[in-house]
Amino acid sequence: MLYLVGLGLSDETDITVKGLEIVKKASRVYLEAYTSILLVDQSVLETYYGRPVTIADREMVESNSDEILRDAGTEDVAFLVVGDPFGATTHTDLVLRARELGIPVGTVPNASIMSGIGAAGLQLYNFGQTVSMVFFTDNWRPASFYDRVRENRTIGLHTLLLLDIKVKEQSLENMARGIRIFEPPRYMTVGQCASQMLEVEEERKEGVYGPNSLAIGAARVGGKTEKFVAGTLKELCEQDDALGPPLHSLVLLGRRTHELEHDFVREFAVNKETWDSIWKADYQGQ
Amino acid sequence: MLYLVGLGLSDETDITVKGLEIVKKASRVYLEAYTSILLVDQSVLETYYGRPVTIADREMVESNSDEILRDAGTEDVAFLVVGDPFGATTHTDLVLRARELGIPVGTVPNASIMSGIGAAGLQLYNFGQTVSMVFFTDNWRPASFYDRVRENRTIGLHTLLLLDIKVKEQSLENMARGIRIFEPPRYMTVGQCASQMLEVEEERKEGVYGPNSLAIGAARVGGKTEKFVAGTLKELCEQDDALGPPLHSLVLLGRRTHELEHDFVREFAVNKETWDSIWKADYQGQ
Repeated sequence: MLYLVGLGLSDETDITVKGLEIVKKASRVYLEAYTSILLVDQSVLETYYGRPVTIADREMVESNSDEILRDAGTEDVAFLVVGDPFGATTHTDLVLRARELGIPVGTVPNASIMSGIGAAGLQLYNFGQTVSMVFFTDNWRPASFYDRVRENRTIGLHTLLLLDIKVKEQSLENMARGIRIFEPPRYMTVGQCASQMLEVEEERKEGVYGPNSLAIGAARVGGKTEKFVAGTLKELCEQDDALGPPLHSLVLLGRRTHELEHDFVREFAVNKETWDSIWKADYQGQ
Repeated sequence: MLYLVGLGLSDETDITVKGLEIVKKASRVYLEAYTSILLVDQSVLETYYGRPVTIADREMVESNSDEILRDAGTEDVAFLVVGDPFGATTHTDLVLRARELGIPVGTVPNASIMSGIGAAGLQLYNFGQTVSMVFFTDNWRPASFYDRVRENRTIGLHTLLLLDIKVKEQSLENMARGIRIFEPPRYMTVGQCASQMLEVEEERKEGVYGPNSLAIGAARVGGKTEKFVAGTLKELCEQDDALGPPLHSLVLLGRRTHELEHDFVREFAVNKETWDSIWKADYQGQ
């Protein structure tokens, strides 16, 4: 059987009891390590599980899934995914491949950033579609997120933005030369995300949001050092030090808000007076 | 400290290792038992934890939260919530009350139906706002869900409908007489939800969806007997036997779909030919 086991958001103890039992008994254990990361290293997991874990990078999962699925018809294989197993499309693909091979599939759900973000104090019911923000380069500045955010904002909903991570990436130069040397990992910060958002608004000028739009920066959601900072997008451009190490996410508020949300989030505000006055003028009762 | 501990979706082993450690050490343990239920009884949890658990009903949480928070400044109190702790507004309220009293709060996230529903094979990125469907009565047929579904459908997104549960409810007659006798618990089925949806469309006639709109009925998501049935809303009116016992949820598909979603969900179709032909005509590439 192929088991997709969610690891939750933070450290080795966020696995469920059910998940841990499967990991301990499986013939082989893979860790998907390119759509998200835990806040602890592979070695911590291996010590905790008492067994080796094979890192499954993008190449392996997308091009060599038959190795992962080898003998899974007769043995148990555990495929560990940070967060919930169905957060990313890749895993849907793996399940479809298993089905083709007649391999039964079991899933062990866990916390996902899409529900864990509720800890910021916004009602999960008031979120629209989730969008991804990638690192802009000189030549590549994909702005499709802007249209998705607009759709959510038009109907008053909050938007969760998941921020790019780059692990095991080659520089264009090394790729061209066929040299398998990888760049150090990079994790987008709330400040980078807020800046890119404002850049795109500056270009498109369609008023989907602006420097004074309210947002929440989130860091290490679900972990012991979880941290939220609330403020305007302009303020959040400068809050990376306050937020600390990765992973970061950002929530852009929608206008359909509840008084409870105000009271809860205000606690995290960079500047409570600014927060209150913008909330009152642009959000409350809209 | 007040700990809000998510229990996940299905049975006693869905708690995280971190959550279980807190439950074992806390001075008192409460189980919130009115916004959702696990698929196992309180006694199973008590045996598994090796200690008593106090059921916290709506009355207790909303009117007597100070009892839950008693001495939480100096002792650890665990408040267990099915799914993720921030799925329901009630818990936001409890956290705000704790803050007022200067009590520190810790959260242990877990799987929520809002992410667990990804196991049905639809991309979580393509979901809009989540809506609730309540049991209609002769005099009370709230249709605000209809407008929310429209908002999601307008921008092509899927809608997760969470279905009503009624636990510890009094009949109007007993309530009027002040008799504290409670009705047996009731859990809305996918069939009841689909019928109510079609009734409201029949009244409003705004074409938000219809009998041939595609949807997925989900039962016991995250559990060993998890079951999905895909079909038109009309078909899903008659699939309660196939779906089996509670809890049920329903997903109404949006038109913004991915080929992978088709391939994955087709496996669950009541009638694969109907599914394919409606998909091709009304969804694919829209």
